Amino acid sequence: MSRWEPDGRGRLEQAALALYAERGYDNTTVAEIAERAGVTERTFFRHFADKREVLFAGAGALQELLVSTVANAPESLAPIDAVAVGLEAAGALFQEHRATVCRRAAIIAGTPELRERELIKLASLSAALAGTLCRRGLSGPAASLTAEVGTAIFRIAFERWIADTNDREFARLVRESLDQLKAVTAGE
Amino acid sequence: MSRWEPDGRGRLEQAALALYAERGYDNTTVAEIAERAGVTERTFFRHFADKREVLFAGAGALQELLVSTVANAPESLAPIDAVAVGLEAAGALFQEHRATVCRRAAIIAGTPELRERELIKLASLSAALAGTLCRRGLSGPAASLTAEVGTAIFRIAFERWIADTNDREFARLVRESLDQLKAVTAGE
Repeated sequence: MSRWEPDGRGRLEQAALALYAERGYDNTTVAEIAERAGVTERTFFRHFADKREVLFAGAGALQELLVSTVANAPESLAPIDAVAVGLEAAGALFQEHRATVCRRAAIIAGTPELRERELIKLASLSAALAGTLCRRGLSGPAASLTAEVGTAIFRIAFERWIADTNDREFARLVRESLDQLKAVTAGE
Repeated sequence: MSRWEPDGRGRLEQAALALYAERGYDNTTVAEIAERAGVTERTFFRHFADKREVLFAGAGALQELLVSTVANAPESLAPIDAVAVGLEAAGALFQEHRATVCRRAAIIAGTPELRERELIKLASLSAALAGTLCRRGLSGPAASLTAEVGTAIFRIAFERWIADTNDREFARLVRESLDQLKAVTAGE
């Protein structure tokens, strides 16, 4: 997802982000995105179902990375720590594309329809995570709970990372949030 | 929310639940709900914005109960335990209307549009909870995290309660989920 990738897909993503920021999400059409990217509308629809999906195109890869990292984390790790390792891996991906991720987050935050979509993607992430934790041998109820908590840590760390003026790494904010969670649940 | 309350609002809620279960949510119209409840469509729209909102009419009262219980919980309680007290109070409300709550949950589970709406209501609940925890003196980041985790416990306890064949009380499932969370974050 580097800036101005040579392929149409990457160009379309960058064009959409730029237009949403300039004109607002609601006021941007697929035709305008295609034009800005220098491709046809048909090419747009070969890559994305609609203008909303451009913003969530990375969700599948993110979920895959998270799930496979958790699945392959050392067996000796407690489930919540295996989840943290997965979140750190996801964070490395964010870190690499910080400018794009921040622009995307700003557009989503400003549009209720997109915030709803984001919630659904997070619920799906949580369900996938629960499945992986089950396969790691955790009981169903404990797996769901750990996945929900992991998703909560992810949201919190993400919000802090976006707002952070000290340029701290995503992985560090995940660790901080997890430590805070441990303190909170220990009743401190 | 007792069965067949004398007021139009309660009758409309029961009529909607019955029709959604019989015909499906998508196949039910406001006119049919009003007819079944023995009121005019105009009366329906005096109480609810649309047929979706009938299902979420109790969300405001639930949020209010949860937030005020957490706000008034003994100061000596750790934040997460204050949240648990709030969830137990909300649970008492569910317990009282178990049949209605279960029917409602089944309808929501079967309709993507309604599941999305439920996620949004939960996000709003989490935000309200975070605000209350802030007012109890918790720092902003810790308040958000505790609220997210509290909402996760709520979801998990709710799912278990709906599926529970042993008729265990909602409050007990909240406590169990919280204990499990404490075990999970302690790395057990």
